[in-house]
Amino acid sequence: MVKVDLNCDMGESFALYELGNDEEMMKYITSANIACGFHAGDPSVMRKTIELAKEHGVAIGAHPGFPDLLGFGRRYMTCTAREVKDYITYQTGALREFARAADAEIQHCKPHGALFMKAMEDKEIARAVLEAIHDINPDTIVFALNNSEVWEQANQMGIPVALETYSDREHTENGSIVLTRKGSAIQDYNEMAQRVVRMVKEGKVTTHDGKEASLKAQTVCIHGDTPGAPALAKAIVQALKDNDVQIVPIREII
Amino acid sequence: MVKVDLNCDMGESFALYELGNDEEMMKYITSANIACGFHAGDPSVMRKTIELAKEHGVAIGAHPGFPDLLGFGRRYMTCTAREVKDYITYQTGALREFARAADAEIQHCKPHGALFMKAMEDKEIARAVLEAIHDINPDTIVFALNNSEVWEQANQMGIPVALETYSDREHTENGSIVLTRKGSAIQDYNEMAQRVVRMVKEGKVTTHDGKEASLKAQTVCIHGDTPGAPALAKAIVQALKDNDVQIVPIREII
Amino acid sequence: MVKVDLNCDMGESFALYELGNDEEMMKYITSANIACGFHAGDPSVMRKTIELAKEHGVAIGAHPGFPDLLGFGRRYMTCTAREVKDYITYQTGALREFARAADAEIQHCKPHGALFMKAMEDKEIARAVLEAIHDINPDTIVFALNNSEVWEQANQMGIPVALETYSDREHTENGSIVLTRKGSAIQDYNEMAQRVVRMVKEGKVTTHDGKEASLKAQTVCIHGDTPGAPALAKAIVQALKDNDVQIVPIREII
Amino acid sequence: MVKVDLNCDMGESFALYELGNDEEMMKYITSANIACGFHAGDPSVMRKTIELAKEHGVAIGAHPGFPDLLGFGRRYMTCTAREVKDYITYQTGALREFARAADAEIQHCKPHGALFMKAMEDKEIARAVLEAIHDINPDTIVFALNNSEVWEQANQMGIPVALETYSDREHTENGSIVLTRKGSAIQDYNEMAQRVVRMVKEGKVTTHDGKEASLKAQTVCIHGDTPGAPALAKAIVQALKDNDVQIVPIREII
Repeated sequence: MVKVDLNCDMGESFALYELGNDEEMMKYITSANIACGFHAGDPSVMRKTIELAKEHGVAIGAHPGFPDLLGFGRRYMTCTAREVKDYITYQTGALREFARAADAEIQHCKPHGALFMKAMEDKEIARAVLEAIHDINPDTIVFALNNSEVWEQANQMGIPVALETYSDREHTENGSIVLTRKGSAIQDYNEMAQRVVRMVKEGKVTTHDGKEASLKAQTVCIHGDTPGAPALAKAIVQALKDNDVQIVPIREII
Repeated sequence: MVKVDLNCDMGESFALYELGNDEEMMKYITSANIACGFHAGDPSVMRKTIELAKEHGVAIGAHPGFPDLLGFGRRYMTCTAREVKDYITYQTGALREFARAADAEIQHCKPHGALFMKAMEDKEIARAVLEAIHDINPDTIVFALNNSEVWEQANQMGIPVALETYSDREHTENGSIVLTRKGSAIQDYNEMAQRVVRMVKEGKVTTHDGKEASLKAQTVCIHGDTPGAPALAKAIVQALKDNDVQIVPIREII
Repeated sequence: MVKVDLNCDMGESFALYELGNDEEMMKYITSANIACGFHAGDPSVMRKTIELAKEHGVAIGAHPGFPDLLGFGRRYMTCTAREVKDYITYQTGALREFARAADAEIQHCKPHGALFMKAMEDKEIARAVLEAIHDINPDTIVFALNNSEVWEQANQMGIPVALETYSDREHTENGSIVLTRKGSAIQDYNEMAQRVVRMVKEGKVTTHDGKEASLKAQTVCIHGDTPGAPALAKAIVQALKDNDVQIVPIREII
Repeated sequence: MVKVDLNCDMGESFALYELGNDEEMMKYITSANIACGFHAGDPSVMRKTIELAKEHGVAIGAHPGFPDLLGFGRRYMTCTAREVKDYITYQTGALREFARAADAEIQHCKPHGALFMKAMEDKEIARAVLEAIHDINPDTIVFALNNSEVWEQANQMGIPVALETYSDREHTENGSIVLTRKGSAIQDYNEMAQRVVRMVKEGKVTTHDGKEASLKAQTVCIHGDTPGAPALAKAIVQALKDNDVQIVPIREII
């Protein structure tokens, strides 16, 4: 039976500010990428999000970003590889302590926003990210785009890596995604859900410019701030089940 | 043979800003209290400070503070006990990850500045601090002033606790200290060193207002930003040795 | 004809995070207290909020707070008077530049949260706040609770001051308010609106513990994050008009 | 008589952290670029630095940077032009308020670090910087490298602009500078001073790779954190005087 993991960025509230639909989204996903206080999240939000994930049986992952709360980690910063490594160690360590206090484990790590995109295309940053994660725990699974430097380097370094595609972003011909601050261009939940089924079962997606791309979807991301995200998540879960795809945490796939 | 631990706040540099004499002080102390990024320190400084402590065989401790970089954690903030607990978990977890990457352990925890002083006198905050530390690792030793709430509560909770006195601050009659932003009032290193010897061996100190106080000195703090701190540390180490006191990390005492 | 000003905290969004109902609330109020980036708000939010106020003919005020984004400025910090003065100068100066770029003026200043409450009861902090505001512009009107230190000191210093009451908070016998993190205890908009009318026209309010208090209401605050704030604001405006009270910016009253 | 302005970055201390030799450097320079709290500096440091500049008759300038205290503003961030404009308005407004309180004016603006370098080469960011400064006060002088976008756009927009060279950085053939985190490569103060004299009087400099470049030096920067900066500044002042160059604030030149 084909298996896939569904992941979502979580714990991106900060102080009084609420963001996302964490409670709703937890019902549908299998892996939560939890912000660690640099681009979003704060100590109390991290604790609560871990507790929420645990209640729903959702696996916990670190979601470290650039130190840019004002820009939500979506602005690339010319940090050195050493700085990136230190930032990931700091953030993941902080999250891990909350996980430990809740008797839970960090399953995976997915860098956030501009740090994620940079790591995908820059070998040196990719290795910095991977070394940090590996030093923390060699069993931690890293999320990577198809054909990315993170994928390439993780394989060379012997670090477990999961190929990720997006339910609510357009893909390019090489399996990467088209960044946007505008959110999803696709509006029809069923269409989006069918697209996910095709990515998972056939390894195919129609790109933003109408071409066919081949990719592998071991985990599929649904953004919690996509309008109607819970409804989208629900549609995806239903479509996957209807097509005999089993939805499980990534550690059961890799 | 009488034993004592010498501790010093460390890793309080931030970004380009340098503070303290960490390299020099490491030669004399046995336990380093390492800032965790809230009142001072940053991820790279934390990593380097742990490496430095390891090189010198100095035990590593967390030194978490209020989230107040602008005030260097010296301003009391009316945080809830829950917030305090979350802040300590976050900061200590981040430090612990750097320790783990360096194949080292967190020996102890000493809250910083206004958080330290508040915990000493407020039962609820004392318990929040202790619960956080206990959840992280029940073997972590907490530093506490004589007759403080942290001492009292730690004993009730069964958490290992070390009694701390200060080489460069005035004490009050109950063994607490007189807070000052001005640094040490005592200027004569030998006089300060003899005072430390007396605290350690006799359990006595002359207070800021000329009285005699009884206290227990299991660990003695030397502030790295006290003018001439390395010379003071050197004088203290010499005076302790001259008086047959063995200087060892606190885990060998408690 | 009796006149009153209606004020509301505004521009408390930050980065991607949205808070309050600024667009809706602008329709009803006459003075906007705009966050300046320390407890909430950011440069872009400040610019947009000033533009929004200008569109609606709402007077602009500074709403400076403690440097505590994580606590939304609701935690008291033991800053010195000098630090408080510098923080108000910094924040108000930044806001004033955006006002100037929009060809607008700063009408008033109302400190936020814990800084507001501290200034009301502490003479030294009250004077620090007032000196900062006076140095910026001696015509700037300061908002103060009845019988507060800010009121007392402003009168001694010859600084224009407006007496403020709250539509959605309980009052104490001396005209101060009962702080709460829970929001308003009163839920009936019409009841709240009638209470405002009575404060404005009769200078009377029933306190949280059922007593009668005398106070003066030159400006009345409506919190934008009180549930149903726009509906409450609408009810207050209607009730005031029905009772022949004219609603105008505070500069037309003081 | 040939005239030149000497400028230095100032007020880059933060909280307890001290950086630079502001008191010493003020004796030699004519224009101070004062940090505004985003990459360095804080409200109290800003106030004190303005007071210090005033005591020494040194003209005051804003030195705004990216919101990156952790990276000291030396890391490029992919902010939008609109964000850059808002950040400059915020920072310069805050500084201006402290200047006003000290009965002083903002003479000039020089962006800091990565923001400076980006503005020099990116037309859109150059215009954002210039528009912000122009909106604040059309008489504010902007510092720009020879042949830079800021120089080009300022001239097109009719904004006063001063051409800047560096005493302690290597220049490229087009008059720009070679960025380094390592500080100055030149170590001989007299050699550096003679190089400045030649830039000012002949408009020539030998580049980092041994070529001859033509440039105009209306203001010359000396970094306060260059080792021996006050001695370098003293040597430059002496050499300029010995060569009949008058040292005056940039407003007396442009």
